[in-house]
Amino acid sequence: MPRKISDIGEKGLIKRILSKTKKSDFSSIFLDNFSFKSLSDDAALINLGDQYLVATSDMLFKSTHFPDDMSYNQIGKKAVTVNVSDLAAMGAKPIGIIVSMGLPRDMLLNEFEEMLDGILDMCSKYDMKLIGGDTNESPELTLCGTCLGIVQKENVLMKCGAQTGDIVAVTGPIGLAAAGFEVLFNKTKFEDLNPNYKAHLIEHALNPKARVNEGILLAKSGFITSATDITDGLVSEVDELIDASSYKIGMTLKEELLPITKEILEMSNKTGKDPLEFALYYGEDFELLLTIKKDGFKQIKEKILLYEIGNVTSSGKIEILHKDGKKSIVKSRGYEHLSPK
Amino acid sequence: MPRKISDIGEKGLIKRILSKTKKSDFSSIFLDNFSFKSLSDDAALINLGDQYLVATSDMLFKSTHFPDDMSYNQIGKKAVTVNVSDLAAMGAKPIGIIVSMGLPRDMLLNEFEEMLDGILDMCSKYDMKLIGGDTNESPELTLCGTCLGIVQKENVLMKCGAQTGDIVAVTGPIGLAAAGFEVLFNKTKFEDLNPNYKAHLIEHALNPKARVNEGILLAKSGFITSATDITDGLVSEVDELIDASSYKIGMTLKEELLPITKEILEMSNKTGKDPLEFALYYGEDFELLLTIKKDGFKQIKEKILLYEIGNVTSSGKIEILHKDGKKSIVKSRGYEHLSPK
Repeated sequence: MPRKISDIGEKGLIKRILSKTKKSDFSSIFLDNFSFKSLSDDAALINLGDQYLVATSDMLFKSTHFPDDMSYNQIGKKAVTVNVSDLAAMGAKPIGIIVSMGLPRDMLLNEFEEMLDGILDMCSKYDMKLIGGDTNESPELTLCGTCLGIVQKENVLMKCGAQTGDIVAVTGPIGLAAAGFEVLFNKTKFEDLNPNYKAHLIEHALNPKARVNEGILLAKSGFITSATDITDGLVSEVDELIDASSYKIGMTLKEELLPITKEILEMSNKTGKDPLEFALYYGEDFELLLTIKKDGFKQIKEKILLYEIGNVTSSGKIEILHKDGKKSIVKSRGYEHLSPK
Repeated sequence: MPRKISDIGEKGLIKRILSKTKKSDFSSIFLDNFSFKSLSDDAALINLGDQYLVATSDMLFKSTHFPDDMSYNQIGKKAVTVNVSDLAAMGAKPIGIIVSMGLPRDMLLNEFEEMLDGILDMCSKYDMKLIGGDTNESPELTLCGTCLGIVQKENVLMKCGAQTGDIVAVTGPIGLAAAGFEVLFNKTKFEDLNPNYKAHLIEHALNPKARVNEGILLAKSGFITSATDITDGLVSEVDELIDASSYKIGMTLKEELLPITKEILEMSNKTGKDPLEFALYYGEDFELLLTIKKDGFKQIKEKILLYEIGNVTSSGKIEILHKDGKKSIVKSRGYEHLSPK
């Protein structure tokens, strides 16, 4: 029986794209001033002398990315934020975004305007412009953003580069968005959860923010060896950084260091779910995951709120050092589109 | 009753986007080296010293843009071509494309590979690279391309700039793609059409090409006052060039000059349909529509195949000068997404 794309999943498809593009002979069309870096990074880099133009694209579908509780304003905002987050992961300053839209015929005009306001609000927040777009009719609301940014060449953050001994850190608590979605999808189950906690979690799910200023500052520090944004879950992103390295590296995450907030602990308490689940396997927080030279960590931490969560090892594996001193090996099982069921 | 977006159509929505972005106060976030040109052009321009980086995005859906007769290879090719065509319309040299994909779970792996090959073939044809992408699950096959290109500032082609007295021209015959789709959608009706003619028309419908080299040469000539690519039909694009001008201009198209090929005449003959229908109101040919300084026309025509089709007037209207010497006024009714039914 012929294989379906869902037999190999998103990561399998990306590997096929990479292998084909590497095979193509592009050497004959090398352009004087424009060269491109790896297709596997968060964004493409285009050589502009001292700087890189950084370009990234993310497509979002109503059924997958915008839950019913999300307002049209929040939908517009999220479409911008997920794109900007990829630039933040490379230390780039956003300059503009193009938003292509697939719109259902029966969408109300005021819903469209709300969404547009959300897009423009986030353009303003991230200090960039809406520079283009395209409107189409489609059965499902679909937004595809392409964000452009700029970074000094010597500062750019990439996925490759982590080395044994580096500190692993994140820019904020993890699992909040996932816990927020859990609350939204099971409203009756969490009726007696502290309302402030509930609001805090839902806010993270519906109004995610990208770590743009942090990305720029971190990039300038010169101490970051690799970086990515947490869209598909911590372990999945740790796996990406390990994969991207040309050395055999691994990472050990220390349970006692993981920034798991009181809201998540309370929720886990109520449901019997392990708080580690939220922290390790769910994405959408848009915090940055970094590996940092040991010597520089203290210096950066004075300028930016950072949570040390572990260190880079030479084990080739992802390990968790539990609070009881025991170690276990974990495997990537973050969100993957088209994943084999 | 609240209004729906289909009450105002694609053009109405774009007007709303433009008016909101103009109102937003972006002056405080002006970036030293980056400024942006009009959102209403075929692509966005980003200031890079002597050059513009040109960025454009087009989103395509299976149900709207890829008929059943189109192979996955052709689908991949078309997704690249429609994006590159917007760069051609601005005289830019393509350097790279990002393709975001929404893929149905049950798509076969070999269909995906065929599509990818089509994308890469066109990257090679247009002398650029696939520089990034994003894969998602979606019920309908959806491809969103973002193409980046480069053009010397003094050469860039814009929609505004046409002046009374300029010659109106196109880079090739028009209506072929539309006629090709008509043949595909009514196979039995055209069973006895000359097979060579049929193949020629279908080829234009399923394998469109972008006029990249022509766009670059035209841009360098210095004689082009305005330009766009014909995606939504000749009259619709003529209307766009008139709209974009800051002067009150119109255009007169001369029926006897319109490049309507023998294939279209034969088809019209068989169906009783006016050949002008194909030439004026259907898009997807991806030829360039240009206005050219009268003095320069002869000189350019020696280098590039161009069809003079009329001239820019001060009438404020789009007029057709028919073969019998009579004039009639025509209104834009090219393809519009989300158009009021």
